[in-house]
Amino acid sequence: MKFTSPRGMRDFYPHEKAWHNHLLDTWRRVSVRNGFEHVDGPIFESLDLYKVKSGEGIVSELFSFRRQGGKTDYAIRPEFTPTLARMVAQRANSLPTPIKWFSIPNLCRAEKPQRGRLREHWQWNVDIMGLQGAGADAEVMFTAIDFFRELNLGPEHLRVKISHRQTARHILSRLGVVDDDMLAAFDLLDKRDKIPREAFVQEAAKLGLDEDRVHRLEQTTRMKYRCGELDQMRQQLGMDEDLRDLAALDEQLHAFGIAPWCEYDLGIVRGLAYYTGTVFEIHEISGAERAVAGGGRYDKLIELFGGPSIPAVGFGMGDVVISLVLDDKNLLRDDVAPRPDAFVFALTDAGAKALPGYVAMLRRADVHTRFSYRTTRNVGRLLKEADAVGARYAVLLDDDVAEGTVQLKDLSVGGQEPVAIKAVADLIRKRESAQG
Amino acid sequence: MKFTSPRGMRDFYPHEKAWHNHLLDTWRRVSVRNGFEHVDGPIFESLDLYKVKSGEGIVSELFSFRRQGGKTDYAIRPEFTPTLARMVAQRANSLPTPIKWFSIPNLCRAEKPQRGRLREHWQWNVDIMGLQGAGADAEVMFTAIDFFRELNLGPEHLRVKISHRQTARHILSRLGVVDDDMLAAFDLLDKRDKIPREAFVQEAAKLGLDEDRVHRLEQTTRMKYRCGELDQMRQQLGMDEDLRDLAALDEQLHAFGIAPWCEYDLGIVRGLAYYTGTVFEIHEISGAERAVAGGGRYDKLIELFGGPSIPAVGFGMGDVVISLVLDDKNLLRDDVAPRPDAFVFALTDAGAKALPGYVAMLRRADVHTRFSYRTTRNVGRLLKEADAVGARYAVLLDDDVAEGTVQLKDLSVGGQEPVAIKAVADLIRKRESAQG
Repeated sequence: MKFTSPRGMRDFYPHEKAWHNHLLDTWRRVSVRNGFEHVDGPIFESLDLYKVKSGEGIVSELFSFRRQGGKTDYAIRPEFTPTLARMVAQRANSLPTPIKWFSIPNLCRAEKPQRGRLREHWQWNVDIMGLQGAGADAEVMFTAIDFFRELNLGPEHLRVKISHRQTARHILSRLGVVDDDMLAAFDLLDKRDKIPREAFVQEAAKLGLDEDRVHRLEQTTRMKYRCGELDQMRQQLGMDEDLRDLAALDEQLHAFGIAPWCEYDLGIVRGLAYYTGTVFEIHEISGAERAVAGGGRYDKLIELFGGPSIPAVGFGMGDVVISLVLDDKNLLRDDVAPRPDAFVFALTDAGAKALPGYVAMLRRADVHTRFSYRTTRNVGRLLKEADAVGARYAVLLDDDVAEGTVQLKDLSVGGQEPVAIKAVADLIRKRESAQG
Repeated sequence: MKFTSPRGMRDFYPHEKAWHNHLLDTWRRVSVRNGFEHVDGPIFESLDLYKVKSGEGIVSELFSFRRQGGKTDYAIRPEFTPTLARMVAQRANSLPTPIKWFSIPNLCRAEKPQRGRLREHWQWNVDIMGLQGAGADAEVMFTAIDFFRELNLGPEHLRVKISHRQTARHILSRLGVVDDDMLAAFDLLDKRDKIPREAFVQEAAKLGLDEDRVHRLEQTTRMKYRCGELDQMRQQLGMDEDLRDLAALDEQLHAFGIAPWCEYDLGIVRGLAYYTGTVFEIHEISGAERAVAGGGRYDKLIELFGGPSIPAVGFGMGDVVISLVLDDKNLLRDDVAPRPDAFVFALTDAGAKALPGYVAMLRRADVHTRFSYRTTRNVGRLLKEADAVGARYAVLLDDDVAEGTVQLKDLSVGGQEPVAIKAVADLIRKRESAQG
């Protein structure tokens, strides 16, 4: 009988889990220093919750179920936003604003697994609720970038591609798309690069766009402008009023010092119906992978879940694509597994008798301590074992344990010295913190 | 439209999540310092995987489902052991032994929620595989206790109740229970305190135990012996050979310094069929709650999942009962939410203009930084806001930012001093580490 993990799901052996922890820990640390508070919700919710924002269409993409004899349909969470909206709606009156929350849920999608898209993945969600204006938009973008810098990624690797629903709406409207077709047009633009051109033209025709207009739409939405180039955009697109929000954002991107990471790209629309203002996606610069992150302003969403009207902006970032990008750039760190501080072994019977109590004392003092489970007393072999697990110090127990002394060996420089038993934990911690 | 979280599932708002993180982080830190490596697996597995160890009976306790158009039945993980066994079996040839793994999965049970038992909970799993003998048994128990001490729990709060399958088997066998009925007898003993006495007597009769024998069984399994009292147990029970394993364990419990936490309790059997040697449960000392943790030796389990024969010992501890115990003893810490290092606000236009870039710089330097989103420039109100979020320092930006200076105010002692912009992050970190 042989079992494997389900298709599109991952096993995290120690090596993979060490990297995953590093990623998740960095998300959390960056979130906290940017003033966000950690929240989480249930691994599954009522199926109905997921229909609120995405309609019946979402159901086929979900792992849904009903308890034997139960009456409610549930689904494993495919995203966190409905839970977030529900939690805010439930306590809208008592939560101090602005609400700055982050979460790092695992999510499941009942899709065919493919590169960058697995059936189970982890997603970093960062949201500011209760604040209008470009400052909050820029702050969530800054938070994403603050994370990238921690992984040694720079503006030479990634680009924050920014657009605005009103600007896109204005362009589409000038080409003749009526208001009722606007969401369909956003959806079409969003999937443009994922479908054949003929299909795109065909779909566009249904929205009243002939070949000439499709061509103009393509031209417009392929243009990119760096931060500070909005005047150029204004002239080339013949816009004015509709760039007011982007102009305010442009100023904030400069103020937060992230302008070099950003560009305006009117081809970015985000398919989801609920965005109301700024939208953005973060891409590897060559465009080789799926989006690393996506987000925007969604001022009407909390209402949709029964809450009051609260403006909101946020983004989601998955663990899979960012890992592919880092791997591709040789930035996937291989040195993030916890290293033992001390590796203890006995050289005599008296040492062996003292070993468990000694190990217990070190661990109790928060020293990461391992010991040899082998019966050998061969120093060479035991030191090799200590090296193999990456220990910083070896602690040798011999008959001197009776006098309260052990031999402490620094495995990086090789020196060895007798140290009082009670002093070892402090000594190791002091030296480690001196090394930084 | 109002939604709530599903029955028996929890929302973690910032306050609850801060405590939960503290618990999960402490599990992880204690695991690492005890030499365990972190692993994880998928949130759901094939339904068949869960039947291997628990039979068809488990199915009604699972949230199981099938993808639309799919062929495989899946179930949300109700426990981690089958995943662990599968992962070890898959790589048994390449994993260095002993394998010391821990995991902190969320698990789901399709049961009626009750005190101490929710539909979704987190469980700390600690396992040593590839080692026989009492040393490994004692080491996993030490690891559990090492965690309790971190939460300021002592032997006056909790008791590790230890038994051994062979000892229990010997006692039952002497009372006339035949080998074929042994597992049924273990199950019956395990649920003794959860069913009415008449039901217990009735069930016992089916196993060949008349009133007199049931009485003797009850007497025996109600006796408790502290560490070091095995001689007493040997005499009272008339045993010898069958206490050999417990005697070896007794020695190790003393060696690891955890004897004061432990007692032998032959009423502990653990219902699960797969335990082969030592079994233990950790209980709040008055017996008021469900078991805080349970585990034991399961030397045959990896084989059952298609792997080689590997001896193993481990335990599981849920997040719900330990939280109830801590709450009951007023040890549930309320001060574990991350505190901001700096709260920044502007007192002039020049300060306001410099604020986003200044906040960005501090956060980039790993200083937990918040700022006021309000437009007021009233120092009193702004300091009140800084206090309300628990910030350690206030950073005041006025026209001196042009000269590269800000006012730094220590909110615990109240002093205020001009500091060079670039020095603030270092200064705050240095003072924090001096205090911490």
